Amino acid sequence: MTARNILSYSYEEYVEKITAFHGYPAPGVLIGGFMVDLAVKNLPEGILYDAICETRTCLPDAVQLLTPCTFGNGWLTVLPMGLFAVSLYDKFTGEGVRVFLDVEKMGPWQEIRNWFLKLKTKKEQDSERLFKEIREAGPDILELRNVKLKPGFLEKKHKGKIVLCPQCREAYPAQDGELCLSCQGGSPYL
Amino acid sequence: MTARNILSYSYEEYVEKITAFHGYPAPGVLIGGFMVDLAVKNLPEGILYDAICETRTCLPDAVQLLTPCTFGNGWLTVLPMGLFAVSLYDKFTGEGVRVFLDVEKMGPWQEIRNWFLKLKTKKEQDSERLFKEIREAGPDILELRNVKLKPGFLEKKHKGKIVLCPQCREAYPAQDGELCLSCQGGSPYL
Repeated sequence: MTARNILSYSYEEYVEKITAFHGYPAPGVLIGGFMVDLAVKNLPEGILYDAICETRTCLPDAVQLLTPCTFGNGWLTVLPMGLFAVSLYDKFTGEGVRVFLDVEKMGPWQEIRNWFLKLKTKKEQDSERLFKEIREAGPDILELRNVKLKPGFLEKKHKGKIVLCPQCREAYPAQDGELCLSCQGGSPYL
Repeated sequence: MTARNILSYSYEEYVEKITAFHGYPAPGVLIGGFMVDLAVKNLPEGILYDAICETRTCLPDAVQLLTPCTFGNGWLTVLPMGLFAVSLYDKFTGEGVRVFLDVEKMGPWQEIRNWFLKLKTKKEQDSERLFKEIREAGPDILELRNVKLKPGFLEKKHKGKIVLCPQCREAYPAQDGELCLSCQGGSPYL
């Protein structure tokens, strides 16, 4: 069995880490580990980088576990476009790399292909084979390209002035309008 | 000094944990710890719960560190309404609790008030006093109410069929249209 590493972790340590954080070793977080590993190794050393995940599923947890970028600290942005891709980029210049899955490289890894393209239901999946393929394929199913961010995505949004909502009495960003977004209809509660 | 706990952690252990994950002990993640602690303690024991954060700032990291809910596993939803509030709710019934900050309780904690309402710039903040107040105030600045989710927020979104985008050749959810959302103009890259 090929020795596999994901940044400073052995593959097995990474599996333990994601099981503790994500709840279970989901295929998307396992593959995400190789994706982040490849991206980090292709960045210039010592730069401060931010991350974009192009899907909300699984991949954000690989980024949060392996890089300084978390959702709550704002260095990870999730753009829910349903694409299984991640980019890491210099937070000042916007230059960086994007890693994504290449279906054309999945020939030898049919169970990964079945999972990725949802060609089998979860019940039909051969999980044992899928996990074996993920470990063996490692970065071989990945593709990398250089990217540069559009200027609009580099600007940090600021909340501006904080005021109390006249309806719910909670603090909210004044720029959202005369009521907070929740009282404007965004509330998820009955 | 009052002993403080955040779920199974001592306050000091929690500070260490968030420093490792979030990068630094941000006031919002510290207070967020007390918020999640209060919410968890007010849920029936043994239920499976999901989480909603009503802000993208800081609070999501407290949820991710203290509960099974992460962004990538889909049990944490972030509704970016700029409200510093979190709810935990039974994922089947939608019944749960919402914890938020109550400005009216901040009388004895002026530096928390200054931070929360952005009455001082970061430079003017007395960080030492702010951290001291956060630890001392603990849950005393929090308010809790019972909530029930609107049915639309309980439904899990499914990606449906996956197809290859005819333009970029990457896999995307067919329901998004004839091209992936990135090729439709959502791409953050030049």
